[in-house]
Amino acid sequence: MPSEYRFRRRVQFYETDAAGLVHFSWYFRYMEEAEHALWREAGLSIHPPHGEIGFPRVSTSFEFHRALRFEQEFDVHVRVAAMTKRSIRYTCVLSDGDSKIATGTLVTVCVRRHADQAMTVADIPPEIAARIQVAPDA
Amino acid sequence: MPSEYRFRRRVQFYETDAAGLVHFSWYFRYMEEAEHALWREAGLSIHPPHGEIGFPRVSTSFEFHRALRFEQEFDVHVRVAAMTKRSIRYTCVLSDGDSKIATGTLVTVCVRRHADQAMTVADIPPEIAARIQVAPDA
Amino acid sequence: MPSEYRFRRRVQFYETDAAGLVHFSWYFRYMEEAEHALWREAGLSIHPPHGEIGFPRVSTSFEFHRALRFEQEFDVHVRVAAMTKRSIRYTCVLSDGDSKIATGTLVTVCVRRHADQAMTVADIPPEIAARIQVAPDA
Amino acid sequence: MPSEYRFRRRVQFYETDAAGLVHFSWYFRYMEEAEHALWREAGLSIHPPHGEIGFPRVSTSFEFHRALRFEQEFDVHVRVAAMTKRSIRYTCVLSDGDSKIATGTLVTVCVRRHADQAMTVADIPPEIAARIQVAPDA
Repeated sequence: MPSEYRFRRRVQFYETDAAGLVHFSWYFRYMEEAEHALWREAGLSIHPPHGEIGFPRVSTSFEFHRALRFEQEFDVHVRVAAMTKRSIRYTCVLSDGDSKIATGTLVTVCVRRHADQAMTVADIPPEIAARIQVAPDA
Repeated sequence: MPSEYRFRRRVQFYETDAAGLVHFSWYFRYMEEAEHALWREAGLSIHPPHGEIGFPRVSTSFEFHRALRFEQEFDVHVRVAAMTKRSIRYTCVLSDGDSKIATGTLVTVCVRRHADQAMTVADIPPEIAARIQVAPDA
Repeated sequence: MPSEYRFRRRVQFYETDAAGLVHFSWYFRYMEEAEHALWREAGLSIHPPHGEIGFPRVSTSFEFHRALRFEQEFDVHVRVAAMTKRSIRYTCVLSDGDSKIATGTLVTVCVRRHADQAMTVADIPPEIAARIQVAPDA
Repeated sequence: MPSEYRFRRRVQFYETDAAGLVHFSWYFRYMEEAEHALWREAGLSIHPPHGEIGFPRVSTSFEFHRALRFEQEFDVHVRVAAMTKRSIRYTCVLSDGDSKIATGTLVTVCVRRHADQAMTVADIPPEIAARIQVAPDA
């Protein structure tokens, strides 16, 4: 039952902007990569082919401490900070060795998708809730 | 019955890369913006909410003549170059006044999407084929 | 001296994801489009060709209230919420008529870029500070 | 002296679109990831911090054979198909086992970047030309 996930990654050229830095929108994608990898680690997919359950975002944030540049390597470390019946809160740290690059948060809510595209908030199914846990010291 | 579409657009910061130019992957998105606007001009949506018909890409290309930079304005001009029972071929020119920036092509094929996610090639429905036409001198 | 900027925009296909919604990373790009348009309204560019001054992001956040889907139109409204000698804080509301879609914040800091790629925090140059003002009731 | 590069990759959620497939603009980014990894394999960076040499794109294309979906794994295989004094031509195959997903091409030209942002075509510097070679049977 994973409560966190960590991977190392390299900045791709298409993630940089004309200021020579990674564009800030990409940090949210790095965080999401780790979130989805945590789910795979738990034996789950956050978006299975015919699933009716989804986890849209309620809120998210990032604080940026250091710049990231083309081809730089860095770690993405996401942790489950809190779980309720219907939502999951993650925290995320981007770093390179002792150097902290950025700190993020992400709150997702469990919804059921209906045939007419409407979504209603729903309890996290037990087969999902049983496979992800809150990080011990989160 | 439109056969072409033209619009003016400005380069956004997130479209640039560390070389200070628009990343080449964006030209394909500019072309697609024009393709979808042409469909709207025809009273159609290329991806209506519950549609079973789709137009995945078969092939695409771009030749790049001049660079694009942050905040530069340019025109996107897409034309229907050919239509068969099952496919549409577009050509696209990006320019700024007399200056030609890039030239692209896009071939799409009509498919029917099935419940199991499979897609099979299908005739373009008459209500679509009747609303889009090949550009006269394409 | 603008203190806010508002524009209407349509969801592009490449901004959507497999859940059928705009991917959450795009909201930050919508906010940035409005930020840069506000600067143009003030007669400025946030990234002029040979500028040594830049405005990297210190922190940013979004709360998501409603989903956005392909071809949906919506308004982006950004306001200057606060300015100090060295930083600018924006708030942003995405909406469609009376329907609030999302609410964001963005804090940027003024830096001077050096030849060795280092950046040091700097006072906002007077020619910039004189052209942007805090929104009256922000 | 590498002449090709191959890596395995997984589709990220933000690379998909509302049709449930990888957006076609992403294939060009996959190809570029392999191009830049080939350069690193050769002990080079295609965009070093203070470099005056660049490799903007002259032309590029893709043919799409099969769809890619969220979390699908696939191989990206790029090869140096041709080199002249001033340009490099790559071919690229995306595949999963025996299943061919897409086939791409990319032509880049060597330029020298000047202080005024102008770029002029230049010979590929010998320290680069000596480290990359054309694939034997390309």
